[in-house]
Amino acid sequence: MTNEPADKGEHNDFDKEPALLLARHPFRQKVVLDTSLFVNPDVRTSLGRTPTEALETFLFLAAQIHILEFYMPPSVFEELMHFAERERIPGDLLVVLHQKPPKKHELKCPAFLLYELIEEMRDRVNKGLRVAESAVRSAEKRKPDEIIQDLRRKYREALREGIIDSKEDVDLLLLAMELDALLITADQGLIKWAEKLGIQWLFPEKFKDYLAGAIKRSDFLSALSKEQ
Amino acid sequence: MTNEPADKGEHNDFDKEPALLLARHPFRQKVVLDTSLFVNPDVRTSLGRTPTEALETFLFLAAQIHILEFYMPPSVFEELMHFAERERIPGDLLVVLHQKPPKKHELKCPAFLLYELIEEMRDRVNKGLRVAESAVRSAEKRKPDEIIQDLRRKYREALREGIIDSKEDVDLLLLAMELDALLITADQGLIKWAEKLGIQWLFPEKFKDYLAGAIKRSDFLSALSKEQ
Repeated sequence: MTNEPADKGEHNDFDKEPALLLARHPFRQKVVLDTSLFVNPDVRTSLGRTPTEALETFLFLAAQIHILEFYMPPSVFEELMHFAERERIPGDLLVVLHQKPPKKHELKCPAFLLYELIEEMRDRVNKGLRVAESAVRSAEKRKPDEIIQDLRRKYREALREGIIDSKEDVDLLLLAMELDALLITADQGLIKWAEKLGIQWLFPEKFKDYLAGAIKRSDFLSALSKEQ
Repeated sequence: MTNEPADKGEHNDFDKEPALLLARHPFRQKVVLDTSLFVNPDVRTSLGRTPTEALETFLFLAAQIHILEFYMPPSVFEELMHFAERERIPGDLLVVLHQKPPKKHELKCPAFLLYELIEEMRDRVNKGLRVAESAVRSAEKRKPDEIIQDLRRKYREALREGIIDSKEDVDLLLLAMELDALLITADQGLIKWAEKLGIQWLFPEKFKDYLAGAIKRSDFLSALSKEQ
């Protein structure tokens, strides 16, 4: 940074101080949000007791931040709305949280990821079979309906945990890839895949701290801008 | 094609007849082969009674073809060797059938295929659960070992049929993509994915006819070349 005073008579921004430039044209980091931040009780608590409360707190904080742009794929937003009380969510949400699907027919992904996805799937499929086998073996001791209920839960756990397994998961990853954005999610499968794809990610429990930090930075840059 | 005689005194190939040019520098179509051609009894019969016989017939035919280049990923070749009598396979195979892995860290695939792969997997996973549930329900009538044997077979059928599910499958698809090659396989899952990726493919039962046609074309081009 230079210590020379900025030339106030000049309209060319290039002569301005870097800090002032940043204040006027801040680099707006793009952030892609997952529903889990508002829905998963372990993660949500710092924002609110219910998904709706968490969303309201997020909106209150996000309105004070002008250095970040928040995005969510429409499929994930739809999912979120199943958990929230729609009528209590202010229209601001639609302005603050951009709903954008990824350009799925333009984006490319490294082909070696196909091997990893298929390898992961094979492991899960084998786990699923072991769950099924142990359910059959327990049939002598318990009632079929009881076993089947148990089987369903364990099978889904074995096949879905820690893996990308839905359109919504792929939407989140591709959108973050497309926008070169920071992905914030509590889903371990998504974090694992963000690592593979070189996508920035944040520990979800740090979400509120991150927003607080962004407010401070926004205030600092606003003050700098007004000083001039 | 022009009817004017080719200028024999000229060393510049561009003055030659197109047919002659093709005879001297034929476009060599690349062909990627799957093990299923030699192993799957429904497909193999036209080539031989055993995988080894089928390979020998292939070698005999392929030696007469100079307009095609045959490729197989090493992983798939390894698989094939499990079915063949290694000591009976002549070294020619190594010259005629190029073993090449795909450049998996350079190739890219369209991102929308991730949606299709995951959608396909979800369907299979649900089918697997239904198979497991019906196995549990049949436990009152049959012995556990019997049920489990049946479960394994049905489960694998439900989860693996018509889907790409192994490193070898991905190797075949990516190699065909990389070489812009014709893929010949009897695996329905691979054919489905070749369609998605714009890879040329051939009905496997036409494999021998295809080789016969290539021999005829090779002979024709050789004769043309000698005429000059």
